[in-house]
Amino acid sequence: MRPGEIDTPALLVDLDAMERNLHRMAGFAARAGMRLRPHAKTHKCIAIARRQVALGAVGVCCQKVSEAEIMVRGGIDDVLVANEVTGRVKLDRLAALARRARIGLCIDHIDGVAEAAAAAERAGATLDVLVEIEVGGRRCGVSPGRPAARIAASVAAQPRLRLRGLQAYHGAAQHHVDHDARRQAVCGIVEAVRETLTAFAGEGLVCEVVSGAGTGTYELEAAGGVTSELQAGSYVFMDAAYARNRDGNGKPIDTFAPALFVLATVMSRPAPERAVVDAGHKAAAVDSDLPEPFALPGVTYQRPSDEHGVLVAENGRLPARGDKVLLVPGHCDPTVNLHDWLVGIRGMHGPGAHVEAVWPVDARGAVF
Amino acid sequence: MRPGEIDTPALLVDLDAMERNLHRMAGFAARAGMRLRPHAKTHKCIAIARRQVALGAVGVCCQKVSEAEIMVRGGIDDVLVANEVTGRVKLDRLAALARRARIGLCIDHIDGVAEAAAAAERAGATLDVLVEIEVGGRRCGVSPGRPAARIAASVAAQPRLRLRGLQAYHGAAQHHVDHDARRQAVCGIVEAVRETLTAFAGEGLVCEVVSGAGTGTYELEAAGGVTSELQAGSYVFMDAAYARNRDGNGKPIDTFAPALFVLATVMSRPAPERAVVDAGHKAAAVDSDLPEPFALPGVTYQRPSDEHGVLVAENGRLPARGDKVLLVPGHCDPTVNLHDWLVGIRGMHGPGAHVEAVWPVDARGAVF
Repeated sequence: MRPGEIDTPALLVDLDAMERNLHRMAGFAARAGMRLRPHAKTHKCIAIARRQVALGAVGVCCQKVSEAEIMVRGGIDDVLVANEVTGRVKLDRLAALARRARIGLCIDHIDGVAEAAAAAERAGATLDVLVEIEVGGRRCGVSPGRPAARIAASVAAQPRLRLRGLQAYHGAAQHHVDHDARRQAVCGIVEAVRETLTAFAGEGLVCEVVSGAGTGTYELEAAGGVTSELQAGSYVFMDAAYARNRDGNGKPIDTFAPALFVLATVMSRPAPERAVVDAGHKAAAVDSDLPEPFALPGVTYQRPSDEHGVLVAENGRLPARGDKVLLVPGHCDPTVNLHDWLVGIRGMHGPGAHVEAVWPVDARGAVF
Repeated sequence: MRPGEIDTPALLVDLDAMERNLHRMAGFAARAGMRLRPHAKTHKCIAIARRQVALGAVGVCCQKVSEAEIMVRGGIDDVLVANEVTGRVKLDRLAALARRARIGLCIDHIDGVAEAAAAAERAGATLDVLVEIEVGGRRCGVSPGRPAARIAASVAAQPRLRLRGLQAYHGAAQHHVDHDARRQAVCGIVEAVRETLTAFAGEGLVCEVVSGAGTGTYELEAAGGVTSELQAGSYVFMDAAYARNRDGNGKPIDTFAPALFVLATVMSRPAPERAVVDAGHKAAAVDSDLPEPFALPGVTYQRPSDEHGVLVAENGRLPARGDKVLLVPGHCDPTVNLHDWLVGIRGMHGPGAHVEAVWPVDARGAVF
């Protein structure tokens, strides 16, 4: 089947670009001597997680217990829920999973230690724990230094918990467009981690892993010297938001290529100045940037509604009624979560483009 | 089961509020002598569509062929795809559906007439057609007046198509906060419809139905005197965006009550000034307004990421770690589309609150 025969809207993956992206990040981690634990919340797809592991990843991260359950069922045997897990129902599910695979979670509150330990005890399993510290993202995370070491000591005292180290992820830093702003944020991470490592040493605690970093900061964090495990996820697909980031010379960063596209059809050409496509909020997330038309210079996507988007040409040529167009999603993770299938295309932008694989978005809607 | 026992994030429906909303809109349409054809893209749920029909709705609207297929399978026997339908694959599916139910679609281009007629011919079925006109929303829709009448005449000449009338929906007008701005937009709709009716008369064409209006404009459109069928959808649930609309005296409009909530858990209280909940972009859409905490005065929801939201208290009390909170979605339609289930609660805000129904979001992800 050729891409033009696929009904729309559909979520396409440029397999060649994705594979290059996978190899590049795996190669970087290997050269840097870092563990790579890609975030599976980006793709939610077992087939892609397996490729990441085959290229050397130690396992994957998930954000939710339900995602972890799906990844373990798909054969991934080392999963970190890179997030706090609250409530007995979820903790019991996570601990049950730890009977079948190596499972970790983050804790940022002293009460979380006893809760996780009790769940592990009920399941007769052992859970890995990273103490999450606040590194500037103002989301979860205990204060660095002694408050973090206090939680870590409590973890180390629990026979069913295995203190692994620190979660030091700074989400907001990924999307500072300016290189110096990202570098500055990473300096803050390094400082917070060092302060905490000193406090760990004071308590005689060993920190085996400092996990963090994303597609926006992985190189800077490698240079920072404290992060040992990369949690990047978006590099697999890239998106319009990440494409705005600039390097130290103010240039676009082309390490990773856009590999995820929403295929849409022009359903109406009601006026010369606009073309309406059949992909709106329910086909492409708009929480970060709007989707961007691919290979349509001068054309922008505007005013999305639930099932429509409007293409407008400042100084470009609009596609005709019935034409199919590719949109680069503004934000890949929530866009993938809207779709049931990823349609993998080989030779995507060439004359021999064809469908090679159709993968379910296995963890679509897995929010629990 | 009580709401507090439901794992999070979950999508809850206040059944009492929803039923009041359903009755109020049904009562309004009956008193106004208008047909009510609620938009099923809001709830995507057969159980709710059936209740709407039981209260007098003539059928439902959908935005996509796949939604229409699901509604017909659920027993709804009159479905309008209130949208252009492009391409032979979709048109053939729609025409096949017309063998089992009364099915309509919108057309805004002369080529669309022959395409729909050919599909109806292949299926041996008849399709209702509304000619969609541009009424100010700058989305789909042919120019009003003679261009619209030209398409209508072409429809009327096709034995397998049934010219029903006009689609005159103005999406952007629904969310003008100011009453005068909405009234002004409705004046534009009325003018466009009148011009088109004159052109219809000139061609000897009959317009049986003028379909349009939404939760933001239904009263104004009733007063306008040209709209005969109401396509409102959001009134079932309401959301934070609609709650901003004001009446002619600048007052909030309380005709419809919020009936849809995302139940979330406080997963982290890392600092006195913030509480982090487990509901982000993948649990509540942020394309319009951000979700709003319910019954937590002085508390706002900020900085959502994929699976987190941050509650901040300007001058209110933040909930504790482990507490469950209700969020009113910013935009109900795309929020419903993120979830697999609607959990119906009876007596929601009282001491006897309990789960009465669990309905699948039947058309979740039906974007085709």
